[in-house]
Amino acid sequence: MNIDVIFTPEMAPYAELSGKTVLVVDILRASSTITMALAHGAQCVLPVLTPEAAFARNRESSSLLCGERHGRKVPGFHLGNSPREYCPDIVCGKQLIFTTTNGTRALHACADAAELLVGSFLNARAVCGYLAQDKRDLVIVCSGKQGQIGIEDVVFAGLCVEILRPQVKLTDAAQVARVLYEHYRANIIGMLRTCEHGQYLVSIGLDADLEFCAQFNITGVIPISRDGRIERK
Amino acid sequence: MNIDVIFTPEMAPYAELSGKTVLVVDILRASSTITMALAHGAQCVLPVLTPEAAFARNRESSSLLCGERHGRKVPGFHLGNSPREYCPDIVCGKQLIFTTTNGTRALHACADAAELLVGSFLNARAVCGYLAQDKRDLVIVCSGKQGQIGIEDVVFAGLCVEILRPQVKLTDAAQVARVLYEHYRANIIGMLRTCEHGQYLVSIGLDADLEFCAQFNITGVIPISRDGRIERK
Repeated sequence: MNIDVIFTPEMAPYAELSGKTVLVVDILRASSTITMALAHGAQCVLPVLTPEAAFARNRESSSLLCGERHGRKVPGFHLGNSPREYCPDIVCGKQLIFTTTNGTRALHACADAAELLVGSFLNARAVCGYLAQDKRDLVIVCSGKQGQIGIEDVVFAGLCVEILRPQVKLTDAAQVARVLYEHYRANIIGMLRTCEHGQYLVSIGLDADLEFCAQFNITGVIPISRDGRIERK
Repeated sequence: MNIDVIFTPEMAPYAELSGKTVLVVDILRASSTITMALAHGAQCVLPVLTPEAAFARNRESSSLLCGERHGRKVPGFHLGNSPREYCPDIVCGKQLIFTTTNGTRALHACADAAELLVGSFLNARAVCGYLAQDKRDLVIVCSGKQGQIGIEDVVFAGLCVEILRPQVKLTDAAQVARVLYEHYRANIIGMLRTCEHGQYLVSIGLDADLEFCAQFNITGVIPISRDGRIERK
């Protein structure tokens, strides 16, 4: 198994994804939110690129409209992009139509993958346990923010590299991620508070989301994409 | 002054370069080679995207054709891309038409910059001394390798961030570079030998280039691009 890390979805075209397992990461907050939605019983998450596409899709089916723009719930949607909103009594059994600024773009950029998973600190052990048994090469695709690097995604990629490293050959990008994780591992919440997107979320009153997304291994759910629907593996 | 770091030229469209100072970096080896060519008296370096463009340009003027593909000198060229080849008796007073796989693409991707400089370990102190006096925001553009990250470029970017840091606000990408530099600073030559492109250069017999490119501050030359010509500042 080889591991590569892609720092933004816009870099995905320069990596070979076909035939590989891809792990999509958007720590703040789409991959954390998808993980919690499925952990709390949502039937599936349907990632779409725009709010308009979400409204159009909703005309076809009775679902919850979920996601954000500029960090805030889209007007007319049922839920925003805070993992804390996705409680069992709200999401259990529901189909969620989900659009975020970066995370859902990353999911769409990885359509060529042989298998497409979603990871976060919340389900890190479960995801890495599964990946350790996987025979395919792995590409971890970070969502970043509008074409730029988000340090929180790279740090999480580095955690995965660190866990899987005994088995693997690393690219330069995977090695960068590993060094970043080593640097920040003792203070993940501090890293989330000082990274650019963490600072932005704090500025709009969403500090509690940072605390939530910094939790390790609170669920064993492994989100997997099948024909554009993300479900529990 | 703010500092941003772009990890590959393909990410440059997602950064704002206009009105800013841009430092292009290709440690192995284009930015090291350009630095040595000008240090040894070359009149200017003209970066072009392809060997074909280099041959066409040469019909217009009597110059040296310089550069590589797959790390090796282009057939029919005078010089390859080893900084060790650019001796005073060969390059002094000459115009060099220069094409490499990644470095010259990075230079072309930064045409919007208010000022465009070229840096390497060889001229780090001179370049950072100049940048410390500069009032504009700085973007360090790493050349990478065909759309993927080259760790050696990011480590050098981190050295610049470290030197300039007391004055500046950092993006997440600049912070990644700083952490990388901290990790590798005690063993730059070891990093060059283990990074992907360093391993490739060793495999084709160019280990001496790694030793050469790992030298700190052997020249005070600051290469600057003016109307597509790179000259001594």
